[in-house]
Order: sequence, then C-alpha cells, then structure tokens
Amino acid sequence: MIEINITTKNKQEFIDITEKVISTIENEIQKHNISEGIVVLYVPHTTAGCLINENADPAVKKDIIEFLESHVPKDKKYHHIEGNADAHIKASIVGNSVALIISNKKLVFGSWQGIFFCEFDGPRTRKLFIQIINKVT
Amino acid sequence: MIEINITTKNKQEFIDITEKVISTIENEIQKHNISEGIVVLYVPHTTAGCLINENADPAVKKDIIEFLESHVPKDKKYHHIEGNADAHIKASIVGNSVALIISNKKLVFGSWQGIFFCEFDGPRTRKLFIQIINKVT
Amino acid sequence: MIEINITTKNKQEFIDITEKVISTIENEIQKHNISEGIVVLYVPHTTAGCLINENADPAVKKDIIEFLESHVPKDKKYHHIEGNADAHIKASIVGNSVALIISNKKLVFGSWQGIFFCEFDGPRTRKLFIQIINKVT
Repeated sequence: MIEINITTKNKQEFIDITEKVISTIENEIQKHNISEGIVVLYVPHTTAGCLINENADPAVKKDIIEFLESHVPKDKKYHHIEGNADAHIKASIVGNSVALIISNKKLVFGSWQGIFFCEFDGPRTRKLFIQIINKVT
Repeated sequence: MIEINITTKNKQEFIDITEKVISTIENEIQKHNISEGIVVLYVPHTTAGCLINENADPAVKKDIIEFLESHVPKDKKYHHIEGNADAHIKASIVGNSVALIISNKKLVFGSWQGIFFCEFDGPRTRKLFIQIINKVT
Repeated sequence: MIEINITTKNKQEFIDITEKVISTIENEIQKHNISEGIVVLYVPHTTAGCLINENADPAVKKDIIEFLESHVPKDKKYHHIEGNADAHIKASIVGNSVALIISNKKLVFGSWQGIFFCEFDGPRTRKLFIQIINKVT
C-alpha cells in the first residue's frame, strides 16, 4: 500500500492530485511488472473525500464546490455542534473511495479526467491510500 | 464471500455496522493469513445503501439523513407509484458499494470513520456482502 | 479488461446495460473458470457515470433524472462556459465507478437491481470498461 500526504490550505478546496496518483501507480506497475489489475484509492477522513471529474477547466471544480455549498450551506443549523456538519454531509455525497482499472501495463483513465482530493474542513494535513491488486492468470 | 444479515426497525435509519464488518474482515485476515488486499462491501438492494462517515457523534448521521430528506422529500409527487421513490433516489446518492484496503494484516480505517448500513424503506431484513481479495506477489 | 461501447441518443438518459454487463461477466467467469472475485466497472468520461438501482419500473430512473435536474438545472449560470457544467456536477453525484462481487461462479446481484449507464451530455459514443480480478487461494 502507498500513502500520499496532502496539505490543504483552505476550508474548502479540491486539490488536483492526478499527476501524483498516476505517476505513483505507473511506478508500481513498472516495479512489479503488473499487466492487468485494479486500484483502490481510499481517504481515511470523514470531512474529506475524493472524486474523478474534469480537470482541464478549473471552472468545473468551482461549479461542483458551489453546487455542494448551495445545497449544504455551512451556516445552516445542524445537530452536530462542532461547526463542520456541512463537511461531513459534503464528504458523504462525494464519497471516500474510488476504484480504478489497470490494463495493458497502464492505468485506464479518460483524457479529460482528473483526480481531486476534496477538502471540506481544512486547512489540514490529510492522507490518501492507494492499493493495487494485480490479476493472476 | 461473507454475508451479513441486518434487521432494520424504522422506515429510515443508518445502522452502525462498523464493529461487525471490521471483526468479520479481521477474522478472515487471520484465517487466511492475508497481508495485503482489498475489500468490497456490496448491498444488493435498491432502497438501501452503505456509507462511510463519522460514527463518534450520532448527530452526524442525523444531519445526513435530514439533508437527504430535505432534498428528496418522501411526500413529493414521483412517477414511481409504490410510495418509495424517495428511497430509490436516496440510495442512488449514497451508493450501494464501498471499496476498502487491507494492509499490514489490518483493515485500513480512519479513527473517526464508521460504516453505516443506510435503510431508506424499512423496516426490512437486509443483506450486505463482503468479498476480500488478497494480493499475490 | 473488456470494453463496452454505448451509443446514447439523448442529451440526458439512463441506459439499462444490465444484461450486457452481466452476460459479459458471466462469459468471462466460464472462460477463465472464476469462482470468487471482484469486478470494477469504470466510465472514463466526465459528463457520464454509472449507477446501480431498480430497473423493473422505468419510472424509477425517470425520478432519479428529475431529482438531478431539479437540483442541478441545465440553465443555471455556471463558471464552466461550455454549456455542460450541469452534466459534470450530475456525473460527480452519480459517480464513475462501481465495484461488484463474484461468488460461487456467479455475479452477486439483487433481484431488483439494474446497471444504468448515465448520460448527461449526449448524444455521444461512450465507453464502459470492465475488469475482473479472481481470488487466488
């Protein structure tokens, strides 16, 4: 398993970790000569998540964040009194794990796709775990 | 594959299955001497799901349920006329499968994370399936 | 890895790919004599996704699409100016990958469940990738 450390700088932000994650996975593919397999990305936090969507135009992540804020406003009254109830709900919508595919010694990934680490209660030091399982034939 | 049976008692509730799921997985880890791997949790229903978020403060799940209810009200008019259209939509938002990681002979899990079985159309007898794949090196 | 091609015909639609996906997986199960395993479905697009929910009554998918449209209206003002910002947000809510379980030489699947390819910015030619990992004991 590989651990990636992420330092977030704002209360709420999507950090593009595409290059970091892909290079980490492709390094493992080469090192262990993996041809076919699957990958799990796992965020061990409850006020952060991860999401795959477009990273070419940064306006897209801005729209996703604004959608979440408009439907889960930070300043509403919630039962959880730590002041970050909205962050738990946003993280629940986005999700905390993603499954990917390795095929032909490469990570299968769309040309417009990017991987975002979604911070909803920063700034904090965060972790993302990556596990790769190779296909045994 | 392991099957867990869950009996829900209310129309809508999040049941904390963290201990049950973790002890089941750790039992398998010991039994089969698994060091590295991945786990899939799968809910075979369409009006229930599963979700990982904070379980330390029960107010968090209350906030998530109220968020879902306020945006997908039970009493709105829907096309599906069985009276549980809201439950299908809520289950679609939450999701019906989760991927986890095993590393160093342990389930990787955040200190504040909990696993919720999300019932949206109970009370019912429900199932959750767990499949573990070990890494072969 | 197997590639499925999907031709969508509308701007927004959920296409039932249950039979296609299940027959593809069961064909692989027979061909490679797989007894236990997991499956990852992966959509490499950013304005489409995939979702598991009820397919028996087509009204359910209509309700899910209307829920998404009412909360993420196409005609709102967004930062992303390509006219499909809503499609990126909808795809982010639905998700672009799903994990499934194979057990006892069969795909584990609920009697009411169906697999939908969710188009939010069609009509287009789309792809869905399927990777199967068998358990080695």
